[in-house]
Amino acid sequence: MSDLLTRSPGWSLPQAAYTDPDLYDADLDRVFAAHWLFAGHTAELDAPGRYLTVDVGRDRVIVVRGEDGAVHAHHDVCAHRGSRVTAEPRGRVKAFVCPYHQWVYGLDGTLRSARLMGDCFATASYRLAPVAVRETAGLVFVCLADDPPAFEPFAAALEPRLGPHGLADARIAVRHHYRVAANWKTLVENNRECYHCAGSHPEFSLSNFDVGVHGDVRTNPRYDRALADARAHWSAQGLPAEDVSFPGGDWYRIARLPLREGYVSETLDGQPLAPPMGTLSDPDVGSLRMVSLPNMWGHANADYAMTTRLTPVDVATTDVELCFLVARDAVVDEDDLAAVWRATSEQDWELCERNYAGIASRGYRPGPLSPVVEASVESFLDWYLDALGGAARAA
Amino acid sequence: MSDLLTRSPGWSLPQAAYTDPDLYDADLDRVFAAHWLFAGHTAELDAPGRYLTVDVGRDRVIVVRGEDGAVHAHHDVCAHRGSRVTAEPRGRVKAFVCPYHQWVYGLDGTLRSARLMGDCFATASYRLAPVAVRETAGLVFVCLADDPPAFEPFAAALEPRLGPHGLADARIAVRHHYRVAANWKTLVENNRECYHCAGSHPEFSLSNFDVGVHGDVRTNPRYDRALADARAHWSAQGLPAEDVSFPGGDWYRIARLPLREGYVSETLDGQPLAPPMGTLSDPDVGSLRMVSLPNMWGHANADYAMTTRLTPVDVATTDVELCFLVARDAVVDEDDLAAVWRATSEQDWELCERNYAGIASRGYRPGPLSPVVEASVESFLDWYLDALGGAARAA
Amino acid sequence: MSDLLTRSPGWSLPQAAYTDPDLYDADLDRVFAAHWLFAGHTAELDAPGRYLTVDVGRDRVIVVRGEDGAVHAHHDVCAHRGSRVTAEPRGRVKAFVCPYHQWVYGLDGTLRSARLMGDCFATASYRLAPVAVRETAGLVFVCLADDPPAFEPFAAALEPRLGPHGLADARIAVRHHYRVAANWKTLVENNRECYHCAGSHPEFSLSNFDVGVHGDVRTNPRYDRALADARAHWSAQGLPAEDVSFPGGDWYRIARLPLREGYVSETLDGQPLAPPMGTLSDPDVGSLRMVSLPNMWGHANADYAMTTRLTPVDVATTDVELCFLVARDAVVDEDDLAAVWRATSEQDWELCERNYAGIASRGYRPGPLSPVVEASVESFLDWYLDALGGAARAA
Repeated sequence: MSDLLTRSPGWSLPQAAYTDPDLYDADLDRVFAAHWLFAGHTAELDAPGRYLTVDVGRDRVIVVRGEDGAVHAHHDVCAHRGSRVTAEPRGRVKAFVCPYHQWVYGLDGTLRSARLMGDCFATASYRLAPVAVRETAGLVFVCLADDPPAFEPFAAALEPRLGPHGLADARIAVRHHYRVAANWKTLVENNRECYHCAGSHPEFSLSNFDVGVHGDVRTNPRYDRALADARAHWSAQGLPAEDVSFPGGDWYRIARLPLREGYVSETLDGQPLAPPMGTLSDPDVGSLRMVSLPNMWGHANADYAMTTRLTPVDVATTDVELCFLVARDAVVDEDDLAAVWRATSEQDWELCERNYAGIASRGYRPGPLSPVVEASVESFLDWYLDALGGAARAA
Repeated sequence: MSDLLTRSPGWSLPQAAYTDPDLYDADLDRVFAAHWLFAGHTAELDAPGRYLTVDVGRDRVIVVRGEDGAVHAHHDVCAHRGSRVTAEPRGRVKAFVCPYHQWVYGLDGTLRSARLMGDCFATASYRLAPVAVRETAGLVFVCLADDPPAFEPFAAALEPRLGPHGLADARIAVRHHYRVAANWKTLVENNRECYHCAGSHPEFSLSNFDVGVHGDVRTNPRYDRALADARAHWSAQGLPAEDVSFPGGDWYRIARLPLREGYVSETLDGQPLAPPMGTLSDPDVGSLRMVSLPNMWGHANADYAMTTRLTPVDVATTDVELCFLVARDAVVDEDDLAAVWRATSEQDWELCERNYAGIASRGYRPGPLSPVVEASVESFLDWYLDALGGAARAA
Repeated sequence: MSDLLTRSPGWSLPQAAYTDPDLYDADLDRVFAAHWLFAGHTAELDAPGRYLTVDVGRDRVIVVRGEDGAVHAHHDVCAHRGSRVTAEPRGRVKAFVCPYHQWVYGLDGTLRSARLMGDCFATASYRLAPVAVRETAGLVFVCLADDPPAFEPFAAALEPRLGPHGLADARIAVRHHYRVAANWKTLVENNRECYHCAGSHPEFSLSNFDVGVHGDVRTNPRYDRALADARAHWSAQGLPAEDVSFPGGDWYRIARLPLREGYVSETLDGQPLAPPMGTLSDPDVGSLRMVSLPNMWGHANADYAMTTRLTPVDVATTDVELCFLVARDAVVDEDDLAAVWRATSEQDWELCERNYAGIASRGYRPGPLSPVVEASVESFLDWYLDALGGAARAA
């Protein structure tokens, strides 16, 4: 992998970074199994025994609300002969009973009973293997590493910004699943620049400025004025106006951006589709953009929020789950709610698949990133190579 | 593979044993290509030229009744440029004519003629590559090895027990095919314990005791009494009552077990669906259970028999063929006939797929086998590792 | 690969040559990326900006008619981040605009403009990576090598023979796509002998003699007389009568063969379906057979021509495109037009799939080629091994 670690700054990665199955295994080990991964929503874990599952490569993690109100996470692998203990992707249980031989695990993962294992069986020695888990502002993250990276700075940045949107008390009104024929990094790169927005995202571009995103160094007086006005407006509502953007090269960014004039939400007509969520009262809080590497991004408007979760399937395939959240009791038209981001996402998957097909071919060479509008792709690649190499140095 | 050979007794295998493609290749070489494999039924080979085919990994073997009444087996690979010579999985032919260039092979596999090969062509030097084949009690086995293990002790044990069921003169009334997303060993392990029966097999559990199976060390006075009574009853009919159970760690087991009170066959209501097969006259002979490693198990009741044949497809995929046999002239309702074992098998495939998904994930660790009810899984793993390592030592 | 290079003359290749993924990669590098490949038809490139695409393994090449009237070929990989720049397999454009970030390439592949790349961006340094391309007699060939083998001798042989058929001014009336479960060499071997024709190709055999093809050393006075008569007839029309057959072991063969008595075209009833193409006036010019290794063969009758193009997909899979061409203004029944060669091709794919299944199995051994009717398979294998080993020596 020395080729990767010595890539030229300002250029896309060598082909092998996107197509080599061994490199993909390293991605799973050093990136996905070593970092915090977005798993799902607190809103889905609203009572003891309520659980969701999240796949990471060939792994599946159960995230469950315990009797104690805390959230727990476990590998979905019975300590007996390894069966999945869940049969559904989400649900509510009193305990996890393995469907194979009925070993019973508490919500905290401890083995409660195992029938017919003999008198010498040390029940207390067995459990569902634990996985680190954290909640913040209604989002749930897991980490497969024994010694996870710090989560607190992220939570400290996210909570005051996303917290008022009340995602923890929201409901998931729409959920979409996609399978995309591209390496996961191709999807993250696509998300890390809006160079392609004007040409590909008409619905998104109705409400969003073409500039102002991370990695876009263009100046635009009209945008600057809109941002200054909006920040004053947000501050007046008690919302922190400053971004937190990959501090120290870290893995997350949270930024509230203004929408175009006449738009108070990322909808086709700019009008809100539902009442403000959480403790928000003003329908116009711009759009709070979040990204957490390697597998999540989302936008939170006052009336709805959208999250995108990536799951690598193999070196050339990535699964995506899109969720649309609204206030728990809001009545919404689901098509209208999903209109902008369903279209935008599907446009992106098509771009990603065409991009990946070209990357995988003999004619591909690393190409130059735009210093004007692709600096955020560059910083993602830096972060990625550091994750890959840092783990390598640690190994 | 040294990791495998040093596994801890009493524990399931390391992950690689189920998921490593190289290990799978070793399984094909050292287990499947080195042992007797169940191929099909004498009942399908009831006239000269009647043939069946059986797949083993990427190999296909033809088994055919010769003009001489003996059964022959050949690789289904033309000696010319390698084409399959059969187009159908079974049928009746006078000779095997390769569909590509019409080379003609006798039922004994010898090349009879090859058109347009020139005057110097030594027809007698070519043939379909032979495969070892044996018949016993209506079951047909093949072995791809040049020097197959002994077959006679198995035949000597099976013939007096299964022979009276008359499978050789039966007909296959129902045939089901399944593709299961699991390594073949996961299916064998599932078959080697009834720890999961009470929780997963309601139809099977109607007629079958929960105890008494190989590897279950529980005692149960009611079962013991039923067994003693049944054995006296079987002996009176001239049926050997004693089991033959993996003698000397060998690859087969044959055991006649009693059914629950009120059940004379493994049917939903316990009543026979067809007249007794073969030379049996009493409708109640319990259920004769057979297993031959690595690819077959079956149950023979007085009125019907069921056989299960495994075909490994790749490290994570196994094909299964289930056959239901009855007396040749018996009129049966096919749904009723297959009801118990179709349900039981499909329940097992679902358990196996969930088990395999967990085994393939990062959270899997070898787990403890029950000393009470899983000793037969342990003895399968012993046999398997011996096959793998014994061949390795011989290589 | 030394095993391959030392195969026994007169025998088919060892199994690995057809099934080993590493060998397949070598095939792509040393055979497909090193030789001229049939890409498509001049008839599809009848105006500036008209383009077609051709896949070679994971590569895609754009072939386009330039403003200058010349044909150009480029890798379909944007020089920015590698996206495919075409969205359709063929069409007409003024320029290639990458759908991802709208980089604009001229038909000659040069980068015309790249938005938002900053003031220091050296537009002139970027282009679609060029691919060698040649046209002859209405057929278009590309070569991925930096230093392609000589094309001119092929063109010099093809032009006077195929040129009069006017393929450059024809139209593609029917196009069929197939995916065949066999290594590409299995398809070429199938094409290189007519040993299988009598047994498998009833439609083809209506119009075609069983003898006379390359590699068939049989003599047949009736055929010899037909050939002599036909050659006199062709010469009188100004058509060269002599074959050009893999000169010096080279990669192409062009031969005009007579059809059976009463047949003037390879149709079911022998009658032409359309007026003579190009400058031909006589409806009876036999059938001009062309093969160019590794990926094309075709037949040109007076009324219609058929081309077959192979695209390797993976070691065990090959895509095929069949095109049927007629004079541009000819009105034809498409089913009648395709009747003989659609049937013949589909028969061949089935033979190839059965052949490949046998080759991939444990029972396969290299088999003897017929010295009477398979010498052309032998010469293909010689050419292939030379390509493989010659490149190896050069590497």
